[in-house]
Amino acid sequence: MTNPVYNFSAGPATLPKEVMLKAQAEFVDFRGIGFGLIEASHRGPAFQQIIDEAEADLREIAGIPDTYSVLFLQGGASTQFAMIPMNLMVDGKPALYADTGAWAAKALKEAKLFGDARAVFSGKQDNYTTIAPSTEWEGMTGDAAYLYICSNNTIFGTQYHDVPEIDGVPLIADMSSDILCRPFDVNKFGMFFAGAQKNLGPAGVTVVVIRKDLAERAKASIPTMLNYNTHIDTGSMFNTPPVFAIYMVGLVLKWIKEKGGLAAMDKANRAKAALLYDFIDHSDAYYGPANPANRSLMNVTFRLNNPDLEPAFIEQASAIGLKSLKGHRSVGGMRASIYNAMPKAGVEKLVEFMADFAKKNA
Amino acid sequence: MTNPVYNFSAGPATLPKEVMLKAQAEFVDFRGIGFGLIEASHRGPAFQQIIDEAEADLREIAGIPDTYSVLFLQGGASTQFAMIPMNLMVDGKPALYADTGAWAAKALKEAKLFGDARAVFSGKQDNYTTIAPSTEWEGMTGDAAYLYICSNNTIFGTQYHDVPEIDGVPLIADMSSDILCRPFDVNKFGMFFAGAQKNLGPAGVTVVVIRKDLAERAKASIPTMLNYNTHIDTGSMFNTPPVFAIYMVGLVLKWIKEKGGLAAMDKANRAKAALLYDFIDHSDAYYGPANPANRSLMNVTFRLNNPDLEPAFIEQASAIGLKSLKGHRSVGGMRASIYNAMPKAGVEKLVEFMADFAKKNA
Repeated sequence: MTNPVYNFSAGPATLPKEVMLKAQAEFVDFRGIGFGLIEASHRGPAFQQIIDEAEADLREIAGIPDTYSVLFLQGGASTQFAMIPMNLMVDGKPALYADTGAWAAKALKEAKLFGDARAVFSGKQDNYTTIAPSTEWEGMTGDAAYLYICSNNTIFGTQYHDVPEIDGVPLIADMSSDILCRPFDVNKFGMFFAGAQKNLGPAGVTVVVIRKDLAERAKASIPTMLNYNTHIDTGSMFNTPPVFAIYMVGLVLKWIKEKGGLAAMDKANRAKAALLYDFIDHSDAYYGPANPANRSLMNVTFRLNNPDLEPAFIEQASAIGLKSLKGHRSVGGMRASIYNAMPKAGVEKLVEFMADFAKKNA
Repeated sequence: MTNPVYNFSAGPATLPKEVMLKAQAEFVDFRGIGFGLIEASHRGPAFQQIIDEAEADLREIAGIPDTYSVLFLQGGASTQFAMIPMNLMVDGKPALYADTGAWAAKALKEAKLFGDARAVFSGKQDNYTTIAPSTEWEGMTGDAAYLYICSNNTIFGTQYHDVPEIDGVPLIADMSSDILCRPFDVNKFGMFFAGAQKNLGPAGVTVVVIRKDLAERAKASIPTMLNYNTHIDTGSMFNTPPVFAIYMVGLVLKWIKEKGGLAAMDKANRAKAALLYDFIDHSDAYYGPANPANRSLMNVTFRLNNPDLEPAFIEQASAIGLKSLKGHRSVGGMRASIYNAMPKAGVEKLVEFMADFAKKNA
């Protein structure tokens, strides 16, 4: 028997094995319709049921009230970086951004194309290893159009464990790399969104959850496809949606429910992360660059004290089936992305390999 | 043995059976990497090869020179309706649109948000059954920023069989529903594009082919994701692309090559369309609303002389495995979408059923 392969890619990322097998089994003939769902009209009953169930399951899992719309859009988080200021900026009010990493910085840069967007915090001088408490942020005015955060910083391995609040100011979060990793209070957010390809499904669909009254800010002059109300008014079917990607998200949501919902995800994710962080903290060979208070449950970044060994580490890990452990090209080192779908056995095997590699190279 | 099922959906649409079986076979373990391509990093070697081959195969099939960029984008043709004027309008010059159907009309409406966009023709008063020769169009000035057409009108079953030209004015075509159905001269176009979900693959990716010098018109103030140059400069990987949809397009392109390229597609498509149109023309029970000179090879619209029988036609056809024959909700009647992937046997079975239905209801 060959070794099982564990895919630690930051995204597109590993999906639950059960989901992959189910999608494969019904790929060519979807539940008896005689052809694949990927070939089926989005206006037909098969897909309508898929998208309706995906929305209902997401609402149930995350506790999303009717005052919010759930949208399935294209274009990735990067398109949201433009849609958010286009739709939600308010004349005369600043939009506030916490710059906690490359993706937050891109969102801020994009917002500046549209109006008064300001950083209330930047972790850049610390190589984004730290998210300072929001009590220390500057310019946190109650007169802001919104406050924007990136809840988990995939590249740097940091994550918010409390969300900032300004009374009366909508909080917007890019949750691309940690959505549904743990319970959270939807009501603290005016909007949150996630490119699916990390914790929700495959690349090609972005889930947007937005408070309906907030979407009403959008001006009619916004291009049709970039106006949230277009998609709210048409149930995400103004034009042909990414049918297969939404179907896969639907399967992942059902998998989360079967596993016990967000409480179960949280428990499993904490156990996996603890395994890795505890090992790193007790090791003489490895260290984690992220500030311990801001460590991510999803993306564990780590380095070898002897960085010259890192290419060998990545290569040898890959050879035994531990794939895609190379850190982001902008920071180097290693990164283990351990999203909901990563089994604990994968992390155990990684820790075992890390111990073995350290011993051999001591 | 159950009847084979033929899916005449206008999009998402039937895909070649060989493509569906191959995608299913390698879904869970892609060519030995130990996991699915849908789970693989877009920065890894497996996907890079997929997107490179898809581009190379499209260039080979359609004869696309190096002076054009090939892009794989998200957001569907509807997003192109905004990107085209944002990127390609020129101050002081009109953008010309031929309004030959609902999608062309939407493109024109969107362009009006950005500047001086004008209809040079409208088929609306004829219920879009006719595309008048471009020699009869009005306002065809050589001082235009571009001339825009929709090469095939899915809803109405009409198609251009010659493309209009204005010397020195880039021609832009929405080819969503007829790309690669027949040979065509790329050099006549400044840009053409297609949502994949009709003739190229699944929903979720839009292929854009644009002359590089034309893309240089785009102003730097355009939102990053909506600027063609962003995607030209990054090989369609500024952000995570729709990996699986691009892979499926790649499989369809290889299938087209194996079948003999565009000449073979053309021959097969003409044979299928002739079967249907000849039957309709010789029938007392059916008629085709589209002007014969503008009939589409891809979407055959037809009516029963007794429209009261249409619901029964659609229901009985579905019962014997002829699916999604209902016309677009805005026009009623029937529509058989017979894209590249529809086998001739499907059209033969449809014609047989049409004859049988007419006889029973004479």
